[in-house]
Amino acid sequence: MNSWQDAYRGLRVTVTGGLGFLGSNLAHALVRAGAEITVLDGLIPGCGGKLGNLSGIEQHCRVVHADLREGEAAVAGADIVFNLAGEISHGRSMTDPLRDGQLNTVSQLQFLSQLARLRPGVRVVYAGTRQVYGVPRALPVDEDHPIDPVDFNGIHKYAATMYHMLYSRLGQLDAVVLRLSNVYGPRMALDVPGQGFLGVFLRRALMGEDLAVYQPGDQLRDPIYVDDAVDAFLAAGAAPALAMRSFNLGGAEALSLERIAATIAEAAQTGSRVYPLEFPARDKAVDIGSYVADWSRARRLLGWQPRTSFAEGVERTLAFYRNNWDAYLPEACPAVEAG
Amino acid sequence: MNSWQDAYRGLRVTVTGGLGFLGSNLAHALVRAGAEITVLDGLIPGCGGKLGNLSGIEQHCRVVHADLREGEAAVAGADIVFNLAGEISHGRSMTDPLRDGQLNTVSQLQFLSQLARLRPGVRVVYAGTRQVYGVPRALPVDEDHPIDPVDFNGIHKYAATMYHMLYSRLGQLDAVVLRLSNVYGPRMALDVPGQGFLGVFLRRALMGEDLAVYQPGDQLRDPIYVDDAVDAFLAAGAAPALAMRSFNLGGAEALSLERIAATIAEAAQTGSRVYPLEFPARDKAVDIGSYVADWSRARRLLGWQPRTSFAEGVERTLAFYRNNWDAYLPEACPAVEAG
Repeated sequence: MNSWQDAYRGLRVTVTGGLGFLGSNLAHALVRAGAEITVLDGLIPGCGGKLGNLSGIEQHCRVVHADLREGEAAVAGADIVFNLAGEISHGRSMTDPLRDGQLNTVSQLQFLSQLARLRPGVRVVYAGTRQVYGVPRALPVDEDHPIDPVDFNGIHKYAATMYHMLYSRLGQLDAVVLRLSNVYGPRMALDVPGQGFLGVFLRRALMGEDLAVYQPGDQLRDPIYVDDAVDAFLAAGAAPALAMRSFNLGGAEALSLERIAATIAEAAQTGSRVYPLEFPARDKAVDIGSYVADWSRARRLLGWQPRTSFAEGVERTLAFYRNNWDAYLPEACPAVEAG
Repeated sequence: MNSWQDAYRGLRVTVTGGLGFLGSNLAHALVRAGAEITVLDGLIPGCGGKLGNLSGIEQHCRVVHADLREGEAAVAGADIVFNLAGEISHGRSMTDPLRDGQLNTVSQLQFLSQLARLRPGVRVVYAGTRQVYGVPRALPVDEDHPIDPVDFNGIHKYAATMYHMLYSRLGQLDAVVLRLSNVYGPRMALDVPGQGFLGVFLRRALMGEDLAVYQPGDQLRDPIYVDDAVDAFLAAGAAPALAMRSFNLGGAEALSLERIAATIAEAAQTGSRVYPLEFPARDKAVDIGSYVADWSRARRLLGWQPRTSFAEGVERTLAFYRNNWDAYLPEACPAVEAG
C-alpha cells in the first residue's frame, strides 16, 4: 500500500468526468481508499462516459449528471477535486474545433471560476496531456519542453492547463497538472470513436480483426496502464504543497507502434494479425512522430513511477473485456485514429 | 518609402478591429498605400473602437459593423487580412475571464475557421502580444522565450496565436503573428479604461493631472510608436513566404516607467508631475516586472526596425490629441492600470 492511501479515508472527493475511462478507474480506487466520492459527469456524447463504469461501486458514489459548467452542487463540500472531464479526441477536434474549445476550454474556465469561489484554495488535479508539446524536439520529453501543440485539442488543453496555473498563482486554487501519455486499460470506451489508437487496437484484437500500423511503424509511445495513472492522481491529490505544478507521466516502457500492435494481437489469441498501412496524408500535419515522457520529476516530487509492464497491462485489460464483453463491445466499428 | 508600400496598390485588404487604435492607424496607412480597404469591427464596448478613428478616410473604407464571428461579408474577396480585433485589457480579463475568452479565443476560432473556408491560404497578420511570455526570464525577450502567460488575456491571446499557427501548418491559412509590446500614439482610446498605462499617462498629462508610477519605478518597457507598429504589419502582410511565423516587435528604446512618465509629463507642459505609488497588492500576482523585446528576427526577415524615439513619438501623440481634444478626452477619468 502506498503512503498516500490513508490520506483519502473520509475525505470528500469530487471527480469530474468520473463516468469516463480514467475517471471511473480513479473512482474505484477512491472507494477502496475510503473516500466519500461525488462524480460530476455530463455524459456528453462522444466523450466516452457511461454509468456502467461505476458497476460495483454505485452505492458508494454520488453521481451528479450535469455539465461541467453547472457543477456547483458537485463541488460544494469538496476537499479535493480530480478534474478529468473533457474530450480527448484529436481527430474530432480537427473536424469540429469549436466543439472541442467549448468542452475543453470554455467549460473548464466556467468550472474553475466557480470552484475558486466556492472552495478557495482547494487542491485540483487536472488531467493534462502530452499533446501540449506537439512534435518532440528530443526524447524523452520533460516538463521544460517548448509548448507547441499541433492540433486543436492540444491548444485547448493547454489553455485549460494555464487556467489551473493562473488560479494557483492568484492563490485561488492549488492545482497540479498531470500531462498524460497514452493511457489504456479496463473501462476504455472501445465502442466510441476517437479514444486513441490503443483502444482501436484492443477492440480489433478482441474481435479477431487485423491491426493496421501507420508506417514507418517504429514511432515510439510509452503507454500508461490505467492503474499506474490512477496512482499518480492519488499521489498528486494527497501531496503537500509542491514546488512544481506540472508533471509528465509516462509508461514503464517505450515501445514502437509495431511492437505495441504485435503484443496486443498475440495476447488476444483471436488470430488477429498486424499489417502495415501508409500514414494517411490528411493526418500528416498533426502527426507527432515519436513520444516518450521523462517522468523523473513525478518520481522525485510525487514518489510515483509506472509499475506495470505493457505485456502485463494488456493481459489485464483483455481479461477485463472478456468478462465485460456486452458492455464495451457492441457492433459498430470505430474509426481508426492515430494517437 | 519602404519597399512594401507598392505592394498594396489595388489590393483588397480587410482589417479586423479597424475602428480601434492600431487598426485605424493601419487603415490610414493602407489608404495612403492605395489599398481597397474593408474594416470589420463590432464596436464592442470597452474595446476602444470608434468611427471617428477613420476621420478623413471614411470615403476610402468600407466599414462592416459586425462581430468577428459574423464577418463573412468582410473577408469574401480579401487578398490580405490584418487581424487586430480583440480586447487588450489585462485588468478586465482578470475580473471577467469568460468575456475575454469569448472575445479573444472563441470569436477568433470562429473567424479563422470561416476565413480558411472562404479564402484558403490567405495571408493573415495577427496582432499578438508579449503577454504570452509572462514574466521574462531574461532580457531582451526573443521568440524562443518559454510561453508562460500570467493573466487570462495572455492565455487567450496565446490560444488565438496557436489557432493561426495550426491553420498555417494545415495549409489552410498563411499566418504571421506579431507579438507587440506596449504601443502608443494617435487614436489610442484615452477615454476607455484598461487600454494600458501609456494611455493613462498621456491622458492625465494632457489634463494637467499628476502621474503615479508603480514602484520601484525602474521596471523597463520598450514602447512602440504606432507608426512603427503599422510599418511592421505592412511589411508582414507583403512579405513572401516566411521561414518563421512569429515576430517580436519592440520600441526604439528601453526606458524605465519613471523615465516614461517624466518624458510624457514634461512634454505635455501642463504642470503635470510624477509621483511614486506602492505597487497595488492585488496586481502583484500578474505583474511581469521588466520587459524588453528582442526584435532582431523581425529586422532580419521583415526588414523592419522601430524608427521613432520615445520623445519624438510622445510629441507627435500629444500634438494629435491637442488637435482632436473633444473626440478623445471626455470627462470621466479612466482607472489606472499597470501595463
